Formats: sequence, structure tokens, C-alpha cells
Amino acid sequence: MKQIFLILFCCNAIHLGAQHIERVEPPFWWSEMKSESLQLMLYGKDIARYTPEMDGITISNIRKTENANYLFMTISTTDVAEGTYVLRLKKGKREVSRYTYEFRKRNEGSALRKGFDSSDVMYLIMPDRFANGNPDNDSSPETAEQADRTKQGGRHGGDIQGIIDHLDYIQELGATTLWSTPLLEDNDPEYSYHTYAQSDVYRIDPRYGTNEDYKRLADELHKKDMKLVMDYVTNHWGAEHWMIRDLPSYDWIHQFPGYANSNYRMETQYDPNASDIDRKYCVDGWFTSTMPDLNQSNPLVLNYLIQNAIWWIEYAGLDGFRVDTYSYNDKESIAAWTKAITDEYPYFNVVGEVWLHDQAQIAYWQKDSRIGAIQDFNSHLPAVMDFTLHDALSTVFHEDEASWDKGIVKVYGNFVNDFLYPDINNLLVFAENHDTQRFNHMYGGDPAKYKMAMAILATVRGIPQLYYGSEIGMGGNKDEGDGAIRQDFPGGWPDDKQNAFTASGRTKRQNEFFAYTSKLFQWRRQTPVIHSGKTKHYLPQDNVYVYFRYNDTNAVMVVINNSTENRTVETGRFRESLNGFEKGTDIITGKEMSLGEISIASKTVMILELK
Amino acid sequence: MKQIFLILFCCNAIHLGAQHIERVEPPFWWSEMKSESLQLMLYGKDIARYTPEMDGITISNIRKTENANYLFMTISTTDVAEGTYVLRLKKGKREVSRYTYEFRKRNEGSALRKGFDSSDVMYLIMPDRFANGNPDNDSSPETAEQADRTKQGGRHGGDIQGIIDHLDYIQELGATTLWSTPLLEDNDPEYSYHTYAQSDVYRIDPRYGTNEDYKRLADELHKKDMKLVMDYVTNHWGAEHWMIRDLPSYDWIHQFPGYANSNYRMETQYDPNASDIDRKYCVDGWFTSTMPDLNQSNPLVLNYLIQNAIWWIEYAGLDGFRVDTYSYNDKESIAAWTKAITDEYPYFNVVGEVWLHDQAQIAYWQKDSRIGAIQDFNSHLPAVMDFTLHDALSTVFHEDEASWDKGIVKVYGNFVNDFLYPDINNLLVFAENHDTQRFNHMYGGDPAKYKMAMAILATVRGIPQLYYGSEIGMGGNKDEGDGAIRQDFPGGWPDDKQNAFTASGRTKRQNEFFAYTSKLFQWRRQTPVIHSGKTKHYLPQDNVYVYFRYNDTNAVMVVINNSTENRTVETGRFRESLNGFEKGTDIITGKEMSLGEISIASKTVMILELK
Repeated sequence: MKQIFLILFCCNAIHLGAQHIERVEPPFWWSEMKSESLQLMLYGKDIARYTPEMDGITISNIRKTENANYLFMTISTTDVAEGTYVLRLKKGKREVSRYTYEFRKRNEGSALRKGFDSSDVMYLIMPDRFANGNPDNDSSPETAEQADRTKQGGRHGGDIQGIIDHLDYIQELGATTLWSTPLLEDNDPEYSYHTYAQSDVYRIDPRYGTNEDYKRLADELHKKDMKLVMDYVTNHWGAEHWMIRDLPSYDWIHQFPGYANSNYRMETQYDPNASDIDRKYCVDGWFTSTMPDLNQSNPLVLNYLIQNAIWWIEYAGLDGFRVDTYSYNDKESIAAWTKAITDEYPYFNVVGEVWLHDQAQIAYWQKDSRIGAIQDFNSHLPAVMDFTLHDALSTVFHEDEASWDKGIVKVYGNFVNDFLYPDINNLLVFAENHDTQRFNHMYGGDPAKYKMAMAILATVRGIPQLYYGSEIGMGGNKDEGDGAIRQDFPGGWPDDKQNAFTASGRTKRQNEFFAYTSKLFQWRRQTPVIHSGKTKHYLPQDNVYVYFRYNDTNAVMVVINNSTENRTVETGRFRESLNGFEKGTDIITGKEMSLGEISIASKTVMILELK
Repeated sequence: MKQIFLILFCCNAIHLGAQHIERVEPPFWWSEMKSESLQLMLYGKDIARYTPEMDGITISNIRKTENANYLFMTISTTDVAEGTYVLRLKKGKREVSRYTYEFRKRNEGSALRKGFDSSDVMYLIMPDRFANGNPDNDSSPETAEQADRTKQGGRHGGDIQGIIDHLDYIQELGATTLWSTPLLEDNDPEYSYHTYAQSDVYRIDPRYGTNEDYKRLADELHKKDMKLVMDYVTNHWGAEHWMIRDLPSYDWIHQFPGYANSNYRMETQYDPNASDIDRKYCVDGWFTSTMPDLNQSNPLVLNYLIQNAIWWIEYAGLDGFRVDTYSYNDKESIAAWTKAITDEYPYFNVVGEVWLHDQAQIAYWQKDSRIGAIQDFNSHLPAVMDFTLHDALSTVFHEDEASWDKGIVKVYGNFVNDFLYPDINNLLVFAENHDTQRFNHMYGGDPAKYKMAMAILATVRGIPQLYYGSEIGMGGNKDEGDGAIRQDFPGGWPDDKQNAFTASGRTKRQNEFFAYTSKLFQWRRQTPVIHSGKTKHYLPQDNVYVYFRYNDTNAVMVVINNSTENRTVETGRFRESLNGFEKGTDIITGKEMSLGEISIASKTVMILELK
């Protein structure tokens, strides 16, 4: 018996006969969760031919699919105490296999954890390209693609240890929250570094580390009062996913006669005139041929994804999700997924990638949207992405001459529709991400334009999101391939000639970018009026845009001069915002100035704390 | 006494002493109106020093302003029968002046008149530039500006008689509804032809004719089963308006210290971040220096405008309003104005000029908008203008190469947000109007592009609006001045060398434009499925866009080839719309074809009635 127990602790499952429980998912769970049931998926050769029993646990439902290698059993978890429970697989009265299922104790305050919010600044990295903390795991015998740093689209060896090694750097920048693109196993034979074609969603890719490493990353962040956001993919898995290779059912994924790519026209999800076929191709078509599209309208799939998401929150201690291709998912199903998660964690935050160019359409996807309500739709998604601000920032600094709709008025124009969003503070604001053109490429690496964009992101409503590398002036042209905007961070690899993680290792130009970013976002971190204050803005004149963030006691004035000339701004027009304030302190230079008339250099932003 | 009665009938007012009632407005009214009161405005030297009485009528309220030349009296109209009522002005017991006020009998069905709707096609003209039916009234001793056809911005002499003379032409074109830009008196000393700077809103400009002529225009239209839409201006009057020259009160119009122009940023009306000052300049600033901005939040002004509007509906027998610069008006006041009118005439139609480029913003202004409701706002405005479709039509036919957001997908994209509008059939759809660039100028006079735009307008949801002259290929470049897009219609003046009102007078090119327009809109007139059918559309492929209008029994298929190549369209993709139909008849050529595969020439639109 002693020996058996040892085996139990080491791999949970025991093989007593012809049957073998190869997997149970979720592999363990927690007591005292809000949800009153749990659906276990058992996997093993012909497993559906056997009957499961679980000591001390009520099995309320058993579901089988057309593939006998799967068995889905729902257990009641209402009164389940922490501890281990033996799950037995029986053939008649004979036990053929068993698995010791564990219910763990939840961490204190787990259910009420507070997710990232507008007091945070998010730093986005691609882990394969950020830092290689453990060169020993660059390749793995368990996964197909080997590291090859010479390939733009290859595995470069960045990993979780590399991130942990540089948390000080990220914090020095003023960021409070880390969004890493996915870290789960992606066993595609090539081009797997982006990790959006996952092959096992209960496992960190061995080339990034272990599940324990990921949990350690969260712990290290929390020690620094920082937060971790997981990049979750509900829409698709990789073609190499073990369940895709042995589908539980034909309808586990969306299948067409022949291959069908998504048409990517997310508008079909709410367009009242859309044809059924276009809507089907949008939602059910595959994102690419290596990413089978999950059928979330199959309750087994949906539940699998819900439990997997909750498992990671609880296991790693996450502070939020970023959900990939949110609006490509069948909208009712993804809303159910999001609701289930936020029912379990009411203050957790989830930001969905809703890559649209119309504010009404983006607002449609935010929780409690009045626009969604026109179609009786509620996504339950707390946060969305301000892609229209991104659109404006991508061109505005080239627009030296102002006109009715050109120049900084485009940024002003982005905020006039703020009322369409149910929660304006829960918008991710960004100048770029891992899928867009690099900001510094758009503007030829001009530090002035970079500083302008960052000053805007740091002072408008919402949650600023930075993209790794830009803070040291990194460029790169997406037109040359996605790898060109996902470069290795210099100093992340032991043999790198330069280490841009340290001031002494950075060039003068890199330090100019870094110093401004750090000063700006460190300031933002300590300035609550930016996190939750109201906005009042003034119609731009001569390509100069002025706005205020304010609350009952504090105010910050932001002056943006997007013209190619230095300007003197008469402040009489801003009386209703300046009332009661006499002076302003430039948060970058520390210089104090009177508010009667403000001189501002061409292509700069001035941020004044008023007093 | 006999003599006195004669005078009464001839000018209503009689002068018995020092006092003189120069004006009473509205000059007469109707019995059995829904509204239970009427506010009469009395004007005359020091009139406020006298006391009004009205035989057999209850005066419920008297209001005076700081200008003693005005007196506002509210009378109860609940039980007032048709007939005349003597209004006496008294000084103590002495009657100093009197006015015989008339309550007329309403026309049968007046209250329940049905306004223009999506079964209609609207033809927009500028009356000074359409046809000169009465050269004797080209100039008038009562108005300042004299006719001068050599001036681009001068009075050219077009008039109501000219319109009446060419109603057959308009009807031949397939139009059912006439929208004439304003016809009320505009006594500006120059550039008065556009008639948006009105000087007396109870009077047709003598250079266009008389009030009776206007009523005759309505009658003639009605005889032809056609409708008349008045272009109403609530936002401003002309600087020469008699009341502006002797203001009832300082706050009758918006006054600033010094002159203040509107900033035209209508977004400030709902932008939650807008500053008070920007909002004030938008709403209260003047449209131009010759157009004092009316203060509709003054109840006397608002009521004056409501009663004036109702007066014209009832007097002339109107079928609708087009309201100028709708969204420049203080939004609560213009909503009250619109509600008052539609309370009186629940099936009357009013379309507001909401010249915005964002569908959520346009939809904000339509009656019962769910977007307006976010701010507890309801404009009560039944119809709005589809300016975003106009924007798309202005560039799309140049876009020969399709991409993600270029080419005919821009037109498709205009309809995906249809759900934002509470009443999608009550949108005015147009390719141009008197304020925009001329369509034929944008496309170099190419008849192919013109036909494509018209085919789209004739087949999409909403109410098509044409602009006079384009149907004969008229061009003209707005960059050369507004007059360049408001040319005289050839044949409208007795001495014109050409008469494009007749087929024989038109050139071959003009006849090509006209014949297509006429065929298309005559067909639309008789095709109810276009008026009220649903839309189903398909994602464009290769710059080819296909949509269907359909109801339970009928369907029309529209195929638009915006590429520069002829295309063959496989129709299998449209199965859900083609189900049950076997053949289609091209509504222009009359050719019948099978639906298996459709060949369509470059830069054409094919409209097929299915059977």
C-alpha cells in the first residue's frame, strides 16, 4: 500500500487493468468555489465503456460523445471539503483504474481578487522574444520546434525565467501589470513562437518553463505589487492539440465540407442585414488552417474552456485575462464564458480583443452596453480596447496642418463618443501591440512623436498599455513580417552584445526614450486623478489640444502642440477648468509656471499638475 | 359700418387711435387643433402699454418683454369655433385699436395627414435656380436685392410658377416628393438667393411669388399624387428679419459680448467631456454673421417657431419638413419643437439635417434612439440623413481595387450598423445635395458612375433624394463657390438657348442620364418590396457586392460590380436568398435570365426582379 500511495502522489492515476485513465481535466480543483458543480473530462482508450464512481462525491451527470475515449462526468461540489477523493473506473463491479482527485484550499481572498484597473499601466511582451533566463529549456524533447534564433519566425528561447529576471526593469518603467502573450504549450512544428496555436491548455510550454514557473512569475509580480494578465485563447486551439488529434466529437470544432477560413468580418455578429452564410464563415471559419475553430456553442466545449480559465486564475493567482480574437467567438457563447468567470470572480478584469474601427461597434462588446442591449446582447466583458484611439495615434502626428478632420482634432474626436461606453475607465489605450505596425516605425523613430503618444496614453481615461521595446526606441516594420515587430529585446540573451535593460547598457538615444517613459508612468502611478478623474476637453485650435483630468480636489492640465510651430496658448478659454488654480508644475521638468499664458514647443506635450 | 367691414376683410386691423396693431402672428389660425392654446404675438409701437381683450375668447396669459412694441397673449382654443373674433386693444376702458382674428376650418384629414415615407423619391431643387415661370417678379420693390443672372451668388429669378410649370418633368423622373430649399422672404441686400437668412417667416419671398402661390404649388403636387416638403429653418433668421431689427428681448437671439461664430462642432451636444464654452459656441454661436442665432430655450421664441411651423403645414397643406442645421439647435429645444409638431400631426414626417460622419452620432438624433436614451435624450425627429452613405458614395467608385476597407465594401459597411437606427426606413439616402460637391463633378461626369449611385439609392432602405440637374449630367465644382453647384436649369428661363426639360431639347448625353434615372425611379415607385422590404446582403468579393430586398412574396437582387473588369458571379453563395426563385428580370433592359451564374459588366449595377 505504501508504494501505491507514493505513486498516487506522484502522478495521481493508477492503472489496475486494461483501462488506463490517461488524463483527468481539470487535473485538480478547489473547495469552496462559487460554482456548485464541476465537469471532469476523463480521457483514455475506450474509457466511455466504463463506469466512474467517486468516493464521497455525488456524480450528477455522465455524458459520452461519439468518441469512446472521452467521458464527461459532472460532480456536485457544494459541500466538498479540501482533500483527496478517489475516482474509480469500473467495469461492472470490478475497478479497472483509479485517479486520486484533489480539492485544494483556496488562497485567502481569492474570490474577491481585484483585477487590473485604470490605476494600472500594462506592459505587453512576447515571451519568446523578451529574455532568455534559462538557455537549457530553449528546445525540449517534448515539443517539435527547436530553438533557432536566426529565423524571424522561429523559437528564440525567451522564457518565464527571463521575465522574472527583469521585473525590476518593467517596474522601473512605471508599469504595474504584465501582459505576456500566451505561454501554454504550442507544439506546432514551425512558427510556434507566438503560441496562439495551443496544444495543451493545462500546461506551460516547456520552452517557457513549467506551470510552477508561471505561478512563481505571478508570485514575484505580486511581491512587487504588480499584476499578471494571462492571454487567453477561446476561439481556437492549434492543430496539434491532443484533443484535436483525437476529437471528442465531430462538433467539438467547426467543420465544413472542405476547409473554410474566417472572413474576419466581425460586423456580421450584429449586422441585421448580414446573411447567415457570412455570419457562419466569420464565427465558424478558422482563423488560419493551423488553428481549428472551437465550437463554443457545444456546452462541453464551453464548459471545458470556462473551467480551464478558472483553473488558471485560481492556480496561478492571475489578475486578469486578455482574451484573444474575442469578437470572432460566437457571441452568445463567449458572453456565457465571460459571465461564468466574472460570476466566480466579480472584481476580476477581462479585456477582450475587439479589433474594430467604429466606437459603437467596440462599445457593443463591453459589459452592460446600451448598444448591445438594442439586440438584447450583454457580453459581460468588463474591458475593451480603444482601437479607434490607436487608429488616430497612427496618423495624427504626421498631420502638421490642422483642418476640420485632420490634425490633433482626430484625438479630440475619439473622446466625443465616450458616452457610448458603459465603463469608460475600463478601456485599454495603446499606440501599438504585437499585431500592429510598430509605433516607432510609423514615425521614423522620432522620439518627439513617441513622447507625444506616451503623454496622451498616460493622461487620458483608461488603462495604458505599452509594448515592449518601444521604450528604448525599438522600431521594426510589420510589412517585413510579424517577426520584424517582435524582435528580441537587446540584453535578454546571454550572448547579446548590448544590454538595454540597464541605463549604462543603453545608448544615449535609448536612454532618452526610456527616461521619458519611466518618468511619465512613474508619475501616473502616483496620480489618482488620472486613474479615476473626469475629463474635460477643449476643441483644438491651430493643432493645439488642451484637456483636463480632474476631481473635486485635483486637476491635471494637458497641452498638446501637434503643429510644427511653437505656440503660445491663451488660457482664458479654459476658465471653467482653471478656476481656483494659480500655478502648474510640469511633471517632466518639475518647472512651476503661472497659468495666464502657456508657451509650448512644437510637437510636444506639456502635462501640468495644477495647484 | 359697411366701410369698416370692408377694411376689416382687406387687412384685418383697424387703427382707432394713437395705437396701431401692425402685426398679429400667427395672422390666423384654425379651430379644432389638438393644442389647447395659442399664443398670439401683437406688434406695434408701445403696444405693451395697452390691454388686449378678445370677444368670446379666454385670454389665459399675457406676457410682456423688455421691448414695449411686443405683447404676447395666450388664448384658450379648446372650444373655439371657426369664425372671426375681434381682438381689441384698450387703454383703460377706451378701445384704441382692433384686429379681427380668424379661426378657419381645417381641411378634412388634416391632423392625420401622412407625410413622405420610404415609398417616396424626393427631388431637391433650389427655386431661384430651377425655372423662372414669372419674369415679372424677378425683382421686387419690397426687397433689397435685385435679380442679376450674371452673378454666381445673385438672384436669378427662379420662382414658384417655374416649379409648377415643370411638375410633369419632375414626375416623369420618378420623383414623388418635392423638397425646395426655402421660399420665405430673405431680404438680405446680397447673396439672398439661398433664402436661409429669412426676414419674414410668415411670407413667401415676393421674388418667388405669394403665399397663395405656395399653396397652389402644394395643391398642384397633390393633384399629381405628389408631396411637398418645406425647408424649415429653426436655428437662425436673417439679420434683416423685422424682429431682429426690433428685438422683442435681448435674449430672443444668442448674443455674446462681441460677435461669436458657431464652432460647428455638433458633437459637443452629447460629448460628456465637452467644455461648457465649446458647447455654448456650437449651439449659441451664429452660423454666419448675417444669420443671428435664435434662442429656442426662450419659451416665447420656441413657441413662435412651433406655431409658425404648424401654420405652414396647415395653411399650405405640407407633407413634411426638412429642417436645416437641425443639430446646431439647442437639443432639448429642438426636440420640444419637433415633438409639438408631431404631436399635432402624428404621421407627418420631418427629416433633420444632421451632417455627421458617425452612425452612432446620426442615430442619436432619430426619434426613440436607444443611443440618445443613454443620455435620456429623445429628439422626436422621425427622419435623419444618411450622411455616411453619402461619404461612401463620394469616393467608392474611384476605388477600382478592393481591399479590407476600400472599394464597394465601404457601401456594404454602411449598412452593418443599421441596427443603431430606430427606424431604418426613415433615412434620407442621397449622393449629393445643395451643400455638397456635385456628384457628377466628383466622377468627371461619367454616366456609369452616376448610374451606379442612382441604382444604389433606388434599391437600399430609406428614402432616395435626388438633386436637380444631376439627372441631365449636370456637373459643377463647389470649390469654385456654392453657386457652381446651384446652376440654372437649362430651359428654365425664357431666353435659354436649350431646354433640357424636354427629351427633344436635351443632348444625347443628357438623355442618357435622364432616361436611366427615369426608368429606375419609375420602377422603384411601383415596387413595394423596395419601400418596406428587409435587406440581406453578402460580403463583397472582388469588388462585387450583392444584396437582396425581400418580403414574404417578392425579392429584388442587386449586383454591383465596382471593379474595372467584367465579372461572372456564382450565385451558390446566395442560396438563402435565392431559394424558391428561378429567374430574374433586369429592370432596366427587361431581359430575363437564369440565376445560376450572373455576368455583369465592369462598373455597372444590375437590378433583378426575381420570380
